[in-house]
Amino acid sequence: MAFELSIGPRIRKSPFFDATVAAGVDSFSTYNHMYMPTSYGDPLAEYWRLIDECAMWDVSVQRQIQLRGPDAHALAQAVCARDLSNQQVGQGKYTPMVDHSGAIINDPLTLRVDEQTWWISIADLDVLQWCRAIAGERGYDVDVTEPDVSPLAVQGPKAEDTVAALLGERIRDVRFFRYVDAEVDGIPLKVGRAGWSKQGGFELYLLDGSRGTELWNLVAEAGAPFGIGPGSPNPIERVESGLFSFYGDNYDGSDPFEVGLGHFVDLDTDVDFIGKAALVERRERGPRHELVGLLIEGDPIGHNQDNWAVKRSDEQVGIVTMSAHSPRVNGGANVALALMDVPNNAPGVDVVVETPGGPAPGVTTTLPFL
Amino acid sequence: MAFELSIGPRIRKSPFFDATVAAGVDSFSTYNHMYMPTSYGDPLAEYWRLIDECAMWDVSVQRQIQLRGPDAHALAQAVCARDLSNQQVGQGKYTPMVDHSGAIINDPLTLRVDEQTWWISIADLDVLQWCRAIAGERGYDVDVTEPDVSPLAVQGPKAEDTVAALLGERIRDVRFFRYVDAEVDGIPLKVGRAGWSKQGGFELYLLDGSRGTELWNLVAEAGAPFGIGPGSPNPIERVESGLFSFYGDNYDGSDPFEVGLGHFVDLDTDVDFIGKAALVERRERGPRHELVGLLIEGDPIGHNQDNWAVKRSDEQVGIVTMSAHSPRVNGGANVALALMDVPNNAPGVDVVVETPGGPAPGVTTTLPFL
Repeated sequence: MAFELSIGPRIRKSPFFDATVAAGVDSFSTYNHMYMPTSYGDPLAEYWRLIDECAMWDVSVQRQIQLRGPDAHALAQAVCARDLSNQQVGQGKYTPMVDHSGAIINDPLTLRVDEQTWWISIADLDVLQWCRAIAGERGYDVDVTEPDVSPLAVQGPKAEDTVAALLGERIRDVRFFRYVDAEVDGIPLKVGRAGWSKQGGFELYLLDGSRGTELWNLVAEAGAPFGIGPGSPNPIERVESGLFSFYGDNYDGSDPFEVGLGHFVDLDTDVDFIGKAALVERRERGPRHELVGLLIEGDPIGHNQDNWAVKRSDEQVGIVTMSAHSPRVNGGANVALALMDVPNNAPGVDVVVETPGGPAPGVTTTLPFL
Repeated sequence: MAFELSIGPRIRKSPFFDATVAAGVDSFSTYNHMYMPTSYGDPLAEYWRLIDECAMWDVSVQRQIQLRGPDAHALAQAVCARDLSNQQVGQGKYTPMVDHSGAIINDPLTLRVDEQTWWISIADLDVLQWCRAIAGERGYDVDVTEPDVSPLAVQGPKAEDTVAALLGERIRDVRFFRYVDAEVDGIPLKVGRAGWSKQGGFELYLLDGSRGTELWNLVAEAGAPFGIGPGSPNPIERVESGLFSFYGDNYDGSDPFEVGLGHFVDLDTDVDFIGKAALVERRERGPRHELVGLLIEGDPIGHNQDNWAVKRSDEQVGIVTMSAHSPRVNGGANVALALMDVPNNAPGVDVVVETPGGPAPGVTTTLPFL
């Protein structure tokens, strides 16, 4: 069953859209009101490029929400469940965001751009309006906007070689989650060591949306000696690595402890933020469910279209949020992320997964798989 | 250029998804983190069914945000730019929502379900989190949730006959924007006279998501004598009728006056709401741009994929937000909605539209076209 994607101006095209079409993109999803490439026709080749060489991804859907003004720090600290007091200019932090009840509403990388400017690099939710609501209610003196910033990710073991060939050797000294200003052929960039894979790499933030095709082509050219090719945030690798995907891997109401992000919230410092009191309570009470790994027996399964029920003695005890066939785990295995109800979140629980092909035995594991 | 839509659990399927597949859906967009059918393969037949007979649309993407509790009314009034003080149980109102700066963030139908319960029927933005932000900041005693409610629209001149055949003759007495409880084969519904077309009709709110296919089939059966067929919110009819589409037809920052919704905000009563003071100022200052109609000369054009530039003496004075070829306007004409900068928002302004096929002469008009 394949369906055509309607293209219209209500959902925005990326600055890299034309370049991805030229590169042979054949399928899309949407994210933050934009079209997001999901495959160029050969998912396994895209996976191996990420693992062995170098992949370039149009992830401009990872919009930046800019907080700028005298109260930018106050607003950033209010909306991020993490102590930002020592964060330096040019430094990013992975900052779960929660609402007043402690429920996760996003898991951005939050970058201090300058003393009075922060960029929140968001997952698929309208954080622009969330931040404006808080600023408006509190009377903060801050402008909340979506600037012209579009990330292009270069990921994989050869990503550093590619970006060094493009931007110079100094890029090798950039530390994890640090961002520096850069330029190539007059195209303004902010470049950081980051990205939504565990294979290492960089994010190139394009700061002029009119020059997407130029940047794409320059990166492709610089990476050619290193085997670069187009891809997208990779569903196999992200399951292997246990990378959380907001909206896909949580219920409405899940807290950071329940989706594997408990160590990224700061409850034991003096800073206050939205949901802190609720998170302290939730930490004491313990999780109701947890995002864990699942090994599923049988022939290779693909990615699930729906949340498959996970059962134990015919009782539902969880759901599969994302499945994949990993060529690397145990020399080839079906792996999945699952939200398991407590106490079935422990490793080693034998379960049955209701796949479209019928019930399949499975067992819970810790994350990551690799 | 056609692309495949990736289907995965991060974006949700409608309760009517399987039924729409059985009915031959061939393309989708997304909306409120859900898949939304956009065509069943014959757009012109879908248009004429809406105009002449009866169309059924899966619009479950029009999610309901439920406010329930002692402060539900206070929260509804805070987030809606309209006086809700006299709104009766069972009554819906078209209520633009604005942020603290007066910028439009949604244009829902807001229904008073009971004394302490409101449903906000939303366009594509995370109003769930917006409402939770306001409630959390103000300490309101209210639960904000997304209940199991999925609208199925029946639109067109024969819609009333269809719904009467399905639910009984009493449905003919339901007035515009009024909702009543109903049931068919034990499927719980809330039914109102409403819908996103000017052809008249009803919205059937399915209150049990497990019974979508059953309801779809019952509606199709009831409507068969009246020529019912599947369709979707229709891009030709909505341009002809000048129906505003949030996110498509506004800039970030546009206010209700600038997108044709000025007469739906209440600035001259005693009630206060978020953005009221800003809207009073904006009303005095006057609009910066306005959503108007545009007639475009030349061969029939289809729907635009991008916002086409609208120019006057080579200077950009607006954008086309949605174009269509209307079989009915002037016996067949290219029509469009355009956001025109003041003073080029007046009717009768001669412009040039930068279409992919080249520049085309056009002239601004008032809305609606029909």
